[in-house]
Parts: sequence; C-alpha cells; structure tokens
Amino acid sequence: MKSIVEQLDPIFKPKSIAILGASNTPGKWGYLMVDRPLKTGYSGAIYPVNPKKGDILGLRTYQSILDIPDQVDLAVVTAPAANSPQLMRECVEKGVKGAVLIPGGFAEVGSEGKALQDEVVRIAREGRIRFVGPNGMGIWSASGQLNLCFEQAPKPGPIAFISQSGTFGGYLSQIASARGYGLSKFISIGNQADLTASEYLEYLAEDQDTKAIVFYMEGFRDGRRFFHLAREVIGKKPIIIYKGGSTGAGARATLSHTASLAGCEEVFEGMCRQVGLIRAQEAAQSFEMAEALVGQPLPKGKRVGIMGSGGQGVVTADACASLGLEVPEFDAETTRSLKELLPPHAPPATNPVDFAGSYRTALEEASVTEKLLSLDYIDGVITNVPISPMVWGLKPASAGTTDPVSNSFKAATQGTEMFASLPKKYNKPVICLRFRRVDNDPVVDILRQAGIPAYDIPEQCARAMHALVKYAEAREHGES
Amino acid sequence: MKSIVEQLDPIFKPKSIAILGASNTPGKWGYLMVDRPLKTGYSGAIYPVNPKKGDILGLRTYQSILDIPDQVDLAVVTAPAANSPQLMRECVEKGVKGAVLIPGGFAEVGSEGKALQDEVVRIAREGRIRFVGPNGMGIWSASGQLNLCFEQAPKPGPIAFISQSGTFGGYLSQIASARGYGLSKFISIGNQADLTASEYLEYLAEDQDTKAIVFYMEGFRDGRRFFHLAREVIGKKPIIIYKGGSTGAGARATLSHTASLAGCEEVFEGMCRQVGLIRAQEAAQSFEMAEALVGQPLPKGKRVGIMGSGGQGVVTADACASLGLEVPEFDAETTRSLKELLPPHAPPATNPVDFAGSYRTALEEASVTEKLLSLDYIDGVITNVPISPMVWGLKPASAGTTDPVSNSFKAATQGTEMFASLPKKYNKPVICLRFRRVDNDPVVDILRQAGIPAYDIPEQCARAMHALVKYAEAREHGES
Repeated sequence: MKSIVEQLDPIFKPKSIAILGASNTPGKWGYLMVDRPLKTGYSGAIYPVNPKKGDILGLRTYQSILDIPDQVDLAVVTAPAANSPQLMRECVEKGVKGAVLIPGGFAEVGSEGKALQDEVVRIAREGRIRFVGPNGMGIWSASGQLNLCFEQAPKPGPIAFISQSGTFGGYLSQIASARGYGLSKFISIGNQADLTASEYLEYLAEDQDTKAIVFYMEGFRDGRRFFHLAREVIGKKPIIIYKGGSTGAGARATLSHTASLAGCEEVFEGMCRQVGLIRAQEAAQSFEMAEALVGQPLPKGKRVGIMGSGGQGVVTADACASLGLEVPEFDAETTRSLKELLPPHAPPATNPVDFAGSYRTALEEASVTEKLLSLDYIDGVITNVPISPMVWGLKPASAGTTDPVSNSFKAATQGTEMFASLPKKYNKPVICLRFRRVDNDPVVDILRQAGIPAYDIPEQCARAMHALVKYAEAREHGES
Repeated sequence: MKSIVEQLDPIFKPKSIAILGASNTPGKWGYLMVDRPLKTGYSGAIYPVNPKKGDILGLRTYQSILDIPDQVDLAVVTAPAANSPQLMRECVEKGVKGAVLIPGGFAEVGSEGKALQDEVVRIAREGRIRFVGPNGMGIWSASGQLNLCFEQAPKPGPIAFISQSGTFGGYLSQIASARGYGLSKFISIGNQADLTASEYLEYLAEDQDTKAIVFYMEGFRDGRRFFHLAREVIGKKPIIIYKGGSTGAGARATLSHTASLAGCEEVFEGMCRQVGLIRAQEAAQSFEMAEALVGQPLPKGKRVGIMGSGGQGVVTADACASLGLEVPEFDAETTRSLKELLPPHAPPATNPVDFAGSYRTALEEASVTEKLLSLDYIDGVITNVPISPMVWGLKPASAGTTDPVSNSFKAATQGTEMFASLPKKYNKPVICLRFRRVDNDPVVDILRQAGIPAYDIPEQCARAMHALVKYAEAREHGES
C-alpha cells in the first residue's frame, strides 16, 4: 500500500491539474478554480474541462478529462454534486491520482446526499483516488504556489492550517496573512467523505514545508485515531487546536453547521492536556503561538525573565503568572550586575526589570537580555523589540553609501543582529513586544528572520511563552 | 470652595501655558513640551520660560514666569525636582491656576524626595494651584488640541484614558490610536502628589467631551473614595479598568514601579462587580469595549442573536456563552420567516443564523438583522460588517457623477445606511465583525459614524456585548 505521502503528494504537489466544470463566468467556482492558480503563478499545467466548447481565460478547454493528452495528477471538481459519480469514474479511467471536490449537496443535506457521497467514495476507493471535501472551499499549497482557494494567495510560510469550516477558515487565513504569518498549506476539509483530519495530520507530520500544524475543528469523526496520532506527531511538530462548539450554544450550532457532535468540553480538554495539544482560545491566537513554536528554542522549564517599562513589566508578569509560569526573583549578585546595564534613575533590578521609560539602544537591550538568558534559573525571556533606528530619524542606507546617518543606521541594526543571535547562543527562547511601534520597521524584519516573534500586546507574549513551555513539557513527557 | 470643574478646567482647557525649564535641545522634556503643543496646533498662547536668554522654537522666552505680561492658566514644569518649590512659589505669585509636573526625583526615590514632594504640595495648596504629577509623562486634552505628552497627537474622540504608568500609558494610547479609537483626554497621573485618580474621575464625569473613562491602575491611594465615587459616576458614564498587579509576580513589580500596594485581587474584583466597573483582561480590550459602550444602546437583558458564516457563528456563540450571555433558540415562526431571507442552500435558521458562506448585500444583511432585533426575546445582535461594495470592484463616486458604477456603489452604501439605522430604531445594540476585510472601507466609516463597532475577531464582539450587558445591569442596579 502506498504511504500517506505518496497518496497525498499528488493533491498538494501536483504537476498538472484539471478543473472539471470550468467556467467563463466570473465569480463561479468553475471560473475561480482556473483563475486563482493562474494568477498565483502555479508552476504546473492547468487544464480546464467543460463539455461546451470555447477557451477559458486563454487556456484550451477540453470536453472531457479523457481528452487531455497529458497525465493529470489532480482533478478539481466544481460541477454540481449529481455529476460527481460520473466525473469520478472518468478520473479513475484517466489515471488521476487525487481530487478536490468543491460542491455541496452531499451528506450535509440529508440521506439522499449521503447516498451520493457514499457512491463517490466507493468509486474513488476502487480507483485509488484520495480526495478532499466535498462541501469545502478548496486548498492552498505553497509548494508550486497552488492556490485553489483564496482571492489572494497567502504568504508562503511554515504553518499548515486545516479547517473544518470553509468560509470561516478563509477568514482565519486572512487574519493570519494580515498579521504576517505564512502558510505552507490550507485545507478546507469539508465533509471528510474520504480524507479525514487524522490523515491530513499524518501527511503534514511528514511535510518538509510544515513546521507547525493549526486546526479549526468542531468535532472529530475519528477522535480516538486523531489523538493517538497526535501524540506521535508532537514528537516532531507542535499542533494547535482552535475548537468550535465548546459550550452548549456553540455545540448546537456545530450540529447544523458541520453535523459534528462537538463532544464534551471537559473530555476534549482532558485529551488535549494528556496528548500535549495546545489550545487557542481566540481566533488569532493559533497563529500567534505557532510563530513562537516555529522559530524559538524550547525552554527547559517555566521560569521567565521579563524586561519592560513600568506597567509593561507588571502586566507581563501578571499574564505569565496567570498562565502558571514562574517569574523568579533575582539573586543579589544579578541585581548588582544589572545596575551597571540600566539607566541611573531605574529602580533596583528585580524581575521584571524596569527600564524606567528610557530609550535603549539595541546593544543596551541585548546586554540586559543576555544577562538574563545566562542565569541558570531563567528558562526564557520576554522583552521589547529593540528600538528602531527610525525612532531617531535614521534611515536605511543605500548600497555603498558613506553617509554618516546611514552608517549609524547600520550600527544600530547591527545591535539588533547581536540581539537576534541570543536565543541560539543560549538555546533559550526570546519573545518580544512591539512597544514603540514603527511602520515598516527593519528591526522587526531582522527579528522575524531569526525566528523571534514580535507581538502587539503583552498578554500575547505571555501566551507564546506558555505555548513553548507546554510544548516542551509534552515533548519531554513523550520521550520519557 | 471651587467645584472640581473650576479647579481642573485650567489644566485641561487652558487659554495659555508656560513651560518652566523650556529648552532648545531636541529630545529634552523642556523642548518637547514646547514643540508638541506647537506642532499639534494648540489653540492658546505658549510661553517658554528659561533663565538663559534666547528664543525657543521661534517663541519669545521669558527668564521667569513673573516676566510674562499676560495671565498664565497652566504651568508645565520640566525643570529638575530640586527647583520645583521655588518655581511653584513663583507660579502662586503669578496667579497660575494649574500645573503639570513632569520630573521624577520625588516620593518615588525615597524619604528625601518625599519631603520635597510634600513641600511642593504645601506651597501649591496654599496658593490654590492643583497639579498633575510629578513623575509622569504629561497630559493630552482634545479640547484646544493641548498635546503635552505624545510624539504624535492622538485622534480626538470620546474616551478619556487615565494611566498610573507613564511609558506604558503612552504605549496603550498608541495601541488605541492604531486601532482608530479617539481620546478626549490622556492623563499620566504620576505620583498623584496632589490630584488623585478619584479627582480625575470626578472631573471626567462632568466633562462634556468624555463618554467613557478608561483606567490603567496598579493600586489606589484612596480606594474607598474611588469606588464610592465610581458608583455614582457609572450612572452617567461607563468606567473600564485594566489593572496591573493582579498576581503575586505582578504585585511585586507594582511595588517597585509605582510604590503601589496592588491589594488583594479577590477584594478588587469583588469591588468592581459590586460597583459595576468593567474590567479589561488585556491591553487593548479597554478601548475595544469603550467603543461599544460609547456608541450603542444598552441591552435590556443578556439574550444575544448571532449571524455569521458557519464556524463564525459557532465560535461567537461559544464566546457569548462562556461570558454568561444567552443565545436563545428561535421559535418556529421565526425560523420560517427567516427562511425567505436566507440563501436557498442555508440550513434551517437557528441561533446563530448561518449565511452558509454566501455573499450578502447590505440590504439582505439588514433584513435579517432587523428580523432578529424585532424579536422580544433578543436583546442585542452580533453580525458581520455588511460586505463592502469594494469587494465587487465598485468604487466611491466623485461628486455629481452619473457613472453607473458609482451609482451602484451609492446604492450599496445606502443599504449600509439602512443597516446602520437599526440600533436606534429598535433601541438595541448591534456589534459587527469585519469578516471580509477591505482596506479603507467606506462601509466601516458609515458604521462607526453610527456608533456601531467593527471588530477583527469574533471573541472581541462577544466581549463588547458582554460589556454592554454588564454596564446595563450596573446602571439598573444603581437606579433601583
């Protein structure tokens, strides 16, 4: 039997795709599924298929998939549900390897639809075609820039996102993009008639482009298998779940939405804890936490060093403590040695360290951060994004310039580069807050390249550190 | 004795200000306090004062405040702490009515500083000068565009923000501005040597420009008075508190930061509940909730009607239920009549109502919203921002054009205007999610003008509705 990678690679890394039910009418699925991969610059061949003659978006259109002269890896079905058994038979005959079924009108509409869905599954299974959907919004795969889903393709990146809700999954992806998070894959899993959440998980565990896996789920068809598998996968990659239907009102809604039994919240929460899945409580938190999990070393414990100005340190310490993290007090020697690194008017250095409102250079910031990282009773540090040279009116240099302003800028960003090297040097995570926000700040780019997240809100920093601690604990638990 | 308005109006609505310790050196407080109101276009007279000769930023500089020929309403003291008793004496002699003391070096540094601070208070009290600070970051007042605080003046708006932390208060104001929330006042209260949080609260309760009052506090000097006063004020305006020091680690930090005893979290939480203060758990939530409290009618109960696509409705219902709001099921007659207003493929209308992923016009959206608002068992509605005509490629019209595209745009925004009129018509709140985000969307502007908030995240919508419910309950409790 083929491995999961062999089965799903033709769906997520196809060399050629055929759009069954392709259309010339803007706005229709049959149009969008041709238009979107074209616009994104999908690297493979695109074959529109429609019984009526006439080219679509400048591409030669075939009357049947069987007329296409080349191999077709992936068939994207946008034709109405009733046509799908016949189309699936033709896919089998053509030797297609995978499919994405967009239309609704299957199990979600009742027993007739369920029968139709079962027939399509039977044909596909016999013909060894695995498929996504039906009743979904499609997929995105950064590999080959395969956009079969979004109005605008997301930024490629290390996060795979699997959503049981189509439109809401699209919204969440848009939120992720707006905040700068890149996606390796997006899968709107629809009715899971063939491929299930567990199988996507199994596949993504092997996917080289994916470093963290995010789910929006309302219920599991095969919860036991999913959690069993998840326990193995988290040895390789973190899994984050944002779950709908955790309350009575929400669960009632999942029933009419995805026909999911949301299940008992206490049981689900218990399983997540036991297996080491990280839960997101709000819409954007999955991606925020994924950013830290992808880029930062795992902490050895839950003791956090915090730097910030006044109230910032206070609320960050509160947020850490509320999540069960520790904010240990410093020893006297550390307080003494920090005194030299802080502005003269700063109060004696405790944890959190108070910069007392002063503007710090990146090098000054780095020296305090390094001091904290060097302590054997500190497992990770939350601090500020080093102040951008742009705050002082410095601008990036043009290449080869000897303009002193540009040189100062370079010197200032070198401080940031030193700062950015610290997590690797100490093998401890560093999480930053964008305290003095500058648009298009090159400092944030330097941090992001080094995998150091830069959040807007102190509580996001604490949640990211907490996710790192929880994931580290789950990994250790799995290894022991 | 003068009323609180008579005492504090000279500070927040001065006709003239003198900057004591004014400086020509960019970056110094003595420079910033001249530069900032100048740049913002402060409507009154600005008098720099510095014993050395020479103009500052093109303004005539006086060697002493006593040399200024006109009345000075507000003195802004940026000179070192040690000079402040003498400067305060001169202010008294000049007949100044209020002051803002910027420098540190007072009670927060120990007993000598405390003695100096007490002396300044004594001189000011005898001379009937009320003052802000010391050891703060200044103030902003939208009245007269008086910017004695920010690098960039915030947008004027209905929210007053009082912060016990200077730098962190500035950061929070910046977060508020970035999210489009306008401030009527910002007060960095510093050591509260003279004016205290309670007195600012008393003043802002009377302030016509202020519709909601937001605090960042770490501890209260006069908690009993504050809560007593707050109970009265919430009869007029909502009060939201974001509190630092709610955990052991945070409380330790408040002690070194503002010398505040953060107090027992349970007692504080109990007082807030009893009095009807609304608590924000994270940095941006205060302003988000304030927006709804300022713009929307108060609900009569806690029963929420929800519209959204698939998972959006599910997680919104979850978030509402988690906060103790109710999401009642619809009666059969409502489900029947909603069927005509929904797309044919949508499931039978339950609460939350599922749009099933389809693009709805503003008028379609308004008709469902209106149906829900008309139900006697629904107290408020959470739904989507009506889809922008820009999603369909329509652009705003130039004045007087007959271009059909622009006319469609106008028709589409008229649908939004109808939508925006619903909260007033039914006297029930409507809260929106920006589900399909468009930059510079005129639809969002129309909603904001009507006081309808548009949030990024479903959980923000639920929190805003919860804040409205809690405030309505507190008002009712106070009246009974």
